[in-house]
Amino acid sequence: MEVAEGVSAATPTEEMNGAGNLMDFLDEPFPDVSTYEDFHTIDWLREKSRDTDRHRKITSKSKESLWELIKSLLDAWSGWVVMLLIGLLSGTLAGVIDLAVDWMTDLKEGVCLSAFWYSHEQCCWTSNETTFDDRDKCPQWQKWAELMTGHAEVELPAFSGSGAYVLNYFLYILWALLFSFLAVSLVRVFAPYACGSGIPEIKTILSGFIIRGYLGKWTLLIKTVTLVLAVSSGLSLGKEGPLVHVACCCGNLFCSLFSKYSKNEGKRREVLSAAAAAGVSVAFGAPIGGVLFSLEEVSYYFPLKTLWRSFFAALVAAFTLRSINPFGNSRLVLFYVEYHTPWYMAELVPFILLGVFGGLWGTLFIRANIAWCRRRKTTQLGKYPVLEVIAVTGITALLAYPNPYTRRSTSELISELFNDCGALESSQLCDYVNNPNMSRPVDDIPDRPAGPGVYNALWQLTLALIFKIVITIFTFGMKIPSGLFIPSMAVGAIAGRIVGIAVEQMAYHHHDWIIFKNWCRPGADCVTPGLYAMVGAAACLGGVTRMTVSLVVIMFELTGGLEYIVPLMAAAVTSKWVADAFGKEGIYESHILLNGYPYLDVRDEFTHRTLATDVMRPRRNDPPLAVLTQDSTTVEDVETLIKDTDYNGFPVVVSRESERLIGFVQRRDLTLAIKNARQKQDGVVSSSVVYFTEDAPQLPASNPQPLKLRRILNLSPFTVTDHTPMETVVDIFRKLGLRQCLVTRSGRLLGIITKKDVLRHMAQMMNQDPESIMFN
Amino acid sequence: MEVAEGVSAATPTEEMNGAGNLMDFLDEPFPDVSTYEDFHTIDWLREKSRDTDRHRKITSKSKESLWELIKSLLDAWSGWVVMLLIGLLSGTLAGVIDLAVDWMTDLKEGVCLSAFWYSHEQCCWTSNETTFDDRDKCPQWQKWAELMTGHAEVELPAFSGSGAYVLNYFLYILWALLFSFLAVSLVRVFAPYACGSGIPEIKTILSGFIIRGYLGKWTLLIKTVTLVLAVSSGLSLGKEGPLVHVACCCGNLFCSLFSKYSKNEGKRREVLSAAAAAGVSVAFGAPIGGVLFSLEEVSYYFPLKTLWRSFFAALVAAFTLRSINPFGNSRLVLFYVEYHTPWYMAELVPFILLGVFGGLWGTLFIRANIAWCRRRKTTQLGKYPVLEVIAVTGITALLAYPNPYTRRSTSELISELFNDCGALESSQLCDYVNNPNMSRPVDDIPDRPAGPGVYNALWQLTLALIFKIVITIFTFGMKIPSGLFIPSMAVGAIAGRIVGIAVEQMAYHHHDWIIFKNWCRPGADCVTPGLYAMVGAAACLGGVTRMTVSLVVIMFELTGGLEYIVPLMAAAVTSKWVADAFGKEGIYESHILLNGYPYLDVRDEFTHRTLATDVMRPRRNDPPLAVLTQDSTTVEDVETLIKDTDYNGFPVVVSRESERLIGFVQRRDLTLAIKNARQKQDGVVSSSVVYFTEDAPQLPASNPQPLKLRRILNLSPFTVTDHTPMETVVDIFRKLGLRQCLVTRSGRLLGIITKKDVLRHMAQMMNQDPESIMFN
Repeated sequence: MEVAEGVSAATPTEEMNGAGNLMDFLDEPFPDVSTYEDFHTIDWLREKSRDTDRHRKITSKSKESLWELIKSLLDAWSGWVVMLLIGLLSGTLAGVIDLAVDWMTDLKEGVCLSAFWYSHEQCCWTSNETTFDDRDKCPQWQKWAELMTGHAEVELPAFSGSGAYVLNYFLYILWALLFSFLAVSLVRVFAPYACGSGIPEIKTILSGFIIRGYLGKWTLLIKTVTLVLAVSSGLSLGKEGPLVHVACCCGNLFCSLFSKYSKNEGKRREVLSAAAAAGVSVAFGAPIGGVLFSLEEVSYYFPLKTLWRSFFAALVAAFTLRSINPFGNSRLVLFYVEYHTPWYMAELVPFILLGVFGGLWGTLFIRANIAWCRRRKTTQLGKYPVLEVIAVTGITALLAYPNPYTRRSTSELISELFNDCGALESSQLCDYVNNPNMSRPVDDIPDRPAGPGVYNALWQLTLALIFKIVITIFTFGMKIPSGLFIPSMAVGAIAGRIVGIAVEQMAYHHHDWIIFKNWCRPGADCVTPGLYAMVGAAACLGGVTRMTVSLVVIMFELTGGLEYIVPLMAAAVTSKWVADAFGKEGIYESHILLNGYPYLDVRDEFTHRTLATDVMRPRRNDPPLAVLTQDSTTVEDVETLIKDTDYNGFPVVVSRESERLIGFVQRRDLTLAIKNARQKQDGVVSSSVVYFTEDAPQLPASNPQPLKLRRILNLSPFTVTDHTPMETVVDIFRKLGLRQCLVTRSGRLLGIITKKDVLRHMAQMMNQDPESIMFN
Repeated sequence: MEVAEGVSAATPTEEMNGAGNLMDFLDEPFPDVSTYEDFHTIDWLREKSRDTDRHRKITSKSKESLWELIKSLLDAWSGWVVMLLIGLLSGTLAGVIDLAVDWMTDLKEGVCLSAFWYSHEQCCWTSNETTFDDRDKCPQWQKWAELMTGHAEVELPAFSGSGAYVLNYFLYILWALLFSFLAVSLVRVFAPYACGSGIPEIKTILSGFIIRGYLGKWTLLIKTVTLVLAVSSGLSLGKEGPLVHVACCCGNLFCSLFSKYSKNEGKRREVLSAAAAAGVSVAFGAPIGGVLFSLEEVSYYFPLKTLWRSFFAALVAAFTLRSINPFGNSRLVLFYVEYHTPWYMAELVPFILLGVFGGLWGTLFIRANIAWCRRRKTTQLGKYPVLEVIAVTGITALLAYPNPYTRRSTSELISELFNDCGALESSQLCDYVNNPNMSRPVDDIPDRPAGPGVYNALWQLTLALIFKIVITIFTFGMKIPSGLFIPSMAVGAIAGRIVGIAVEQMAYHHHDWIIFKNWCRPGADCVTPGLYAMVGAAACLGGVTRMTVSLVVIMFELTGGLEYIVPLMAAAVTSKWVADAFGKEGIYESHILLNGYPYLDVRDEFTHRTLATDVMRPRRNDPPLAVLTQDSTTVEDVETLIKDTDYNGFPVVVSRESERLIGFVQRRDLTLAIKNARQKQDGVVSSSVVYFTEDAPQLPASNPQPLKLRRILNLSPFTVTDHTPMETVVDIFRKLGLRQCLVTRSGRLLGIITKKDVLRHMAQMMNQDPESIMFN
């Protein structure tokens, strides 16, 4: 079945000649003519053609019987079923990951006596005797040192040097090392593809590249488990990027249930695009943002049907996650925030400054991280991935424990930084000097002078900022699952909160300054430091990933109001412009380039004046193009050609003299057809003539029986003239998803351009090493 | 300048040969070779090529001097400037329209004594003496009858027959007739393109069609004025669709400020896509929904850059509108709603039923409206547009006045239907029998039995529903600006509210029934009729327009919470499926078909097995294709060809015998080039040979001087082979935005396929009349 579909797409006229003829092909037992090899590019037009054929077949059959009609309806519905399943599974996995990370992160510090599988928060919820204030100090939760020494001590301040502190510190590092060792070992042994964030590879796969196993069941299982371990180990990484990979693995898994998706690489990619949306949806609790992320950042071919289905998958995933309720607050979003005061025009200045910071951080991070990853690839360093992970984990744990802002999990940190200081807030960051006259616990608290806690927190945050900036550069790209969203946001949120507190204190102490006079009366609540943290987080995330609309929409879904879109947008735009000034590629594109994947970015504008003739092969001094003639090549010639070259296909011309193109034949099809004919068809020997025409050529009677191969010939190969500007060729490759394109002049075949040639030419034009494009 | 850009795109090799050669072209004074004629299709690839050329020129110049650098920066920023201007102007216009409609709608009933330019609401705001309860009965506001008879009567109940009532009724109709007469006259005299919703035409224009004046200044002005008149006249139409047209006119207006956009039809369409987003953004106060509407519903070519810019324009427009604050409540959205209770799983049944209703309404409306519009086009009816508008207005006003739900403006009606009945609500719809035990004015009011007011309202709503359904069919498509969003939403909201009240009363009176038992205890607030109204509105809007994601997102932005997305989505999906079962086209596509515009819908799947050879011209018995040869046609031959045919261009072949294709030349370029040469170039006479090769052909010395036309030759025409399946051809036309495509076999030219041929073939395959496609 599969074979016939693949082949018939290329030669529909023959199918039209009669159903009998068609049936012949259906019966022929070619195993998998139409599948692609690993690390090769797919041909989108061909996949689309095959799907239309399949659809046509089902439609015409559906009129035959009720059973076929039901089957056709099931087929039409399978897309929605796959989306539902993806939503359910990715939502469930995200919930499980959240719960497990919560528990294991707390396990590094202590254990719940009433039930060891409870996290700190859950443990203290269940103990009834605690009030709100000492929620964190319930008797059921015991730190390791307390448990071991057998008596509950008063918690000691940082750097105290007491025995219990040192013991806790030591055990914290030990747990971290254990988790990360387990993670890196599992990845190395069972699923090497489970490392990294996965987004660069998913982008490449969605653009039409085959990486077998990258979205397999093993990868799914190992990535889920090791993601929990990696995040729990306290390394500076997030689970958001890998969740996209996990969701795509779910998508791929469910594709295999339906032949519509499993046998068509184009259709499969539609499902994967939707799965990516579901991944972001559960990562942030932002379904619309997820769909836009998939549209803007990862997808390549995104028809409207996919938009609608992605939205469905993203919603199902978000609601599944909410019904699991891992955050224990019925909230969908990762960081729920609610601010009580509007922002003022003058605040745009610090917001834009945060945007500049985000852009600079993005540039710095991308350059440093790529340099480090290149070093890892090219030097001895890459040979000891386990040691590297252990070392980085050790350093991270050692430096992180003493500082309360780095000791806790990064998402908790971001959550606290985003928060507005309410009246009941007990955190150090909210240690303001209260006005004695004000006793009502209202939301709208006026600006107050900072207390010693805030100043202390500022110092610790500054140290945390430097630590996070440095350690993230070395963490991203190690052989464990590691996302970049959370560390980037943390850097931005810390910087933003510091700026926010500074502005707030300035406004309080100097409200007679001209810049504050108009909007900040004494006793008013005019500056929300939490909003600055949010703007900073958006700026830094934007600088690293170069997301724009989806970033703003994700942030909008977190706050749930249009009120704060302008500050977010100002920061995101500034950050993108600043970062783009230093280099167009975001972190994902940079990693794609580093790995040499054949990715044709839709955002790159090709503006050079080269023509197709400058890019096509053969070049001026190369040997002529390897072609087949329509009726004068022998089986042996073909076999020699296949052996001597490694091209993916060969053009077929009328004759070597006229060089008039009649079609294109895939290497894989040719190999299989000849192997098959040699085995099953009598009279086919090495000297048999291979012909691609309708009728056999006139040959002397003494010649062996010729072999007709018209059915594997693509009679509609894509051609451009040699005068076509490369910008048009690039556009055609991008929009039609071509694998190769033949170059002609006045109907004569001159050469061929493959996707690799296009990418190499683009690299060359941008003064990059064309040899960095490695795959075809 | 413009000429050279258009031409040089086609022949970049020559440009590469030397800048001197290039300068020759630049100096040649062809007035406007590269513009298109009215009612013609643009060539997207060519427009893109021209823009790249322009960009290259600016980039290379920018290195020459500081001034050029500044100019290039300004050019790079012009896109953002245009977006800002569009946002500001369309936001302002939307605000002005809102204010004017408010005032004029109330003018039909009475006048504000203190300031005649105040609407009813504004008038009663300013009078300090009123309390909340009798807000609507302030002394400053006088009905016409009161004013005329000179004493304030107590308001009379409907159908009373008192003199004042009849007088008010009469004046209401008179005002309505005056407004609609003014509207239709202004449209007829000054801007015939200002009628209708404009969205079908904008979709067509964005897909690459030229309709001169459709987005012109006059259209903008007249549409804005007549929109106010039409909405105020009380006809069953909305301002949302026309606002998209108004925003696109703004976009077009600002395009003319920058040659980057005014001289490139492709770039212009990017701006228009963004403007459409701004239009929806101000219509509903939903910027994200607006961008998705533009992406899903109207746009054709929507690169990521446009996504980001659309978002910017939509936000600016929304904030401009908010700062004008026409609704007087600082809210951004048209219908702000806040519900206090969640929905329950069991409620999905009525929601899905509402979806079915929406789908059926969509189908009924589209069929009936198209039938009526066709009748208008083909019979005498179409000749009396003014009379038609007057008649429909008269009937509408006559029937609408007695019913309080149709008398008021439709958006007020929808607003009331969406509202949850709070404790302070005084409307008839909220006339529930209060529990005497419950005195606290809380939000969370338990379900109560309906009072007489509710039953009365139900009857009036049923009459209003029937009235709206019938009258909207006759209203949409008349020669005045008329949107469809609001009437559709009104139909759905009425139906939804009726269903909602029915479910609520069932749940109250039969809370022991098994279906209510699990979720609706007595005394609980379990059913929100307002939510049903909202779901119904979404379902009906979806049924008519077939919007999906954008519809849900717009509704999401109205409620501001993810809570109610599932009901909305269930209804929208059901409605789309039900409506699609009866016919794939939404109302806009149906009107495009009705008008015969050349619109290649991205959503239509072409699944037939035809080949390029079946579609190309010349057909089997036609005369051969009109071609030019590269070096043997004379000027006279060319002139005869141009006179005898009306093709937009001609292929150029090596010779008539070999028929090997070398390029394609536009009719317009050819006409201008020959006219120009005859005027300015000595020795060019009728018998001069025209040649397209690099070098002049060898001719006897006696022959007149030949004319070189290589620079107008497109050396990279798009070709497909005759065996290419039409599904691929359709795909190529769609994705690359081609105007025509040449068909070859083994390098020989066989025929040509234009966009019109493709559309006619598609119509034929769908058993529609191929002659309905009228434009090229």
